[in-house]
Amino acid sequence: MTQTLRIPEFADIEAAARRIAPWAVVTPLLESPALNARTGTRVLLKAEPFQRTGSFKFRGACNRILLIPEAERKGGVVAFSSGNHAQGVAAAAGIFGLPATIVMPADAPRAKIDGTRAYGAKVVTYDRKREDREAIARKIQEESGATLIKPFDDPFVVAGQGTAGLEMVRQAREAGGEIGRVFVPVSGGGLASGTALAFGHTSPATKVISVEPDSYEGMALSLAAGVRTAAPADKPSMADALQSPTPGEVPFAVAKQYLSGGVTVTDEDLARAVSYAIRTLKIVVEPGGAAGLAALLSSKYHNKSEVVGVVLSGGNVDPETIADCCTRFPQP
Amino acid sequence: MTQTLRIPEFADIEAAARRIAPWAVVTPLLESPALNARTGTRVLLKAEPFQRTGSFKFRGACNRILLIPEAERKGGVVAFSSGNHAQGVAAAAGIFGLPATIVMPADAPRAKIDGTRAYGAKVVTYDRKREDREAIARKIQEESGATLIKPFDDPFVVAGQGTAGLEMVRQAREAGGEIGRVFVPVSGGGLASGTALAFGHTSPATKVISVEPDSYEGMALSLAAGVRTAAPADKPSMADALQSPTPGEVPFAVAKQYLSGGVTVTDEDLARAVSYAIRTLKIVVEPGGAAGLAALLSSKYHNKSEVVGVVLSGGNVDPETIADCCTRFPQP
Repeated sequence: MTQTLRIPEFADIEAAARRIAPWAVVTPLLESPALNARTGTRVLLKAEPFQRTGSFKFRGACNRILLIPEAERKGGVVAFSSGNHAQGVAAAAGIFGLPATIVMPADAPRAKIDGTRAYGAKVVTYDRKREDREAIARKIQEESGATLIKPFDDPFVVAGQGTAGLEMVRQAREAGGEIGRVFVPVSGGGLASGTALAFGHTSPATKVISVEPDSYEGMALSLAAGVRTAAPADKPSMADALQSPTPGEVPFAVAKQYLSGGVTVTDEDLARAVSYAIRTLKIVVEPGGAAGLAALLSSKYHNKSEVVGVVLSGGNVDPETIADCCTRFPQP
Repeated sequence: MTQTLRIPEFADIEAAARRIAPWAVVTPLLESPALNARTGTRVLLKAEPFQRTGSFKFRGACNRILLIPEAERKGGVVAFSSGNHAQGVAAAAGIFGLPATIVMPADAPRAKIDGTRAYGAKVVTYDRKREDREAIARKIQEESGATLIKPFDDPFVVAGQGTAGLEMVRQAREAGGEIGRVFVPVSGGGLASGTALAFGHTSPATKVISVEPDSYEGMALSLAAGVRTAAPADKPSMADALQSPTPGEVPFAVAKQYLSGGVTVTDEDLARAVSYAIRTLKIVVEPGGAAGLAALLSSKYHNKSEVVGVVLSGGNVDPETIADCCTRFPQP
């Protein structure tokens, strides 16, 4: 049986924006004179740590949950996630009164596990090295009739994440800027593909660039190869949120048409960016959420004649990690 | 000889807003669904940590420095400050090419001393317990011909700080809110009096409430007494930015007409607010800058039928203090 992939269209993002508007935060697009001075160009920062649940993930989860047919809502929802999608799904389910079960790695940051429970979800932990989270989620789904809310491989999740990009284009214009290049953190690719789709239809000259941790650069490899390609994923990364070795099918189908390229950053780049965000920007950004900022601060990937956009995608980080990054990189 | 006190008027704030517009950041007014849920009311947060130099102090310093007559500019500026005013003056002087000397307590947070130097100012440290910072500044002034930029007792500094309040009223209305009560941190009273003056003329029904650390509640005591009154200042406070025992003459002259009252918070309240800002709001706020949030979180000073405004006045805090507050208050 051949299953046709439903690819999100720009109209899906516009519909998502209307659908989630009563609950999602329109996060600000911030500008820092210090960051402009340091990078030699104008930088506009989309601050998704201020989104409900502390990351962009609420957008996609909210959009997808609102599309569950009435008859299926009582079965609730299930999701697997290292943390941010978990919180997004838990919070959205809580708002609409659906029971939620979240399958999370036992070694996820405490802030993310605690956050998920605080939104009222049941958390089931698993061993990242020995257990298959998709199988666990499938079993829960079969037993309870819950709807699986995938973290990225779903057109309505991608469309929800794309609302961040849609806001960015409008906000940049209100601030008198036309973004030449935008850096977006990538794991499975939901945010990056949704953002690229939004820019593609409202600001087509903008180059949307994916940013991934070294050895998890599945999107960059896939864009180069023209087909979905797995990254080695052969060493640990401090970006707990960016550990998908391969982009999702749906995100990649969008990305290969709308993304302009992909770059990678090291753990050191990420830690420096977290410290910079705390010390200078005064924004709490988690390592994965700081990947775009890390690419910008490395000064390798932008030119000074263009306005640069950066999506700071999440801020759910333990205070210990903040302290560690700030200790390692004391200079702003 | 009688010297008439020049009291700022609302027109001074409007003029300041126009004057500093090319350099000051219009900081966002943020709303957090989590904070609304916790406090049971709608809360609008003015995020001055995102101001140039990480606090509101740049506003007043920039306004004042732009008013130095041409012939006096080459003498440069001198200021005494525990840190945020230091950075505001240093940055503004740097932008306009005036040499700056800043007299700072030797025990000021490293982030503030380093920040001041990074903006190009010369830093002279003194012993908070044994030396008189005003005398040191006066000596420098006499030797160099520098203009003294006072931290709060100056009508144009007060007017500059008041631009934060002016923005707040407009931004709240754009967000569909009419602020019933606003909590503002107070040390010498520049920000609070400027903010109260701005609200008094654009949103007169709003109650502007000063918030001070326990034992540094000079504004609250002065408002109650009707004359400037010193607080005991007899124990240490973690709010390094809020250690004036007495409000300034100029701020108090405005405050007694426009402020509705003053409340106090403990060190524990401040540490909890810093932790809450990091963990939930994802904003880096220093202890003194979190005084308004601390008053809100104490649940003693607002009622749930009104929109509450909070000025987060600064974010220049050492990572060690962040870690300490988050360890002491692990629950969001």
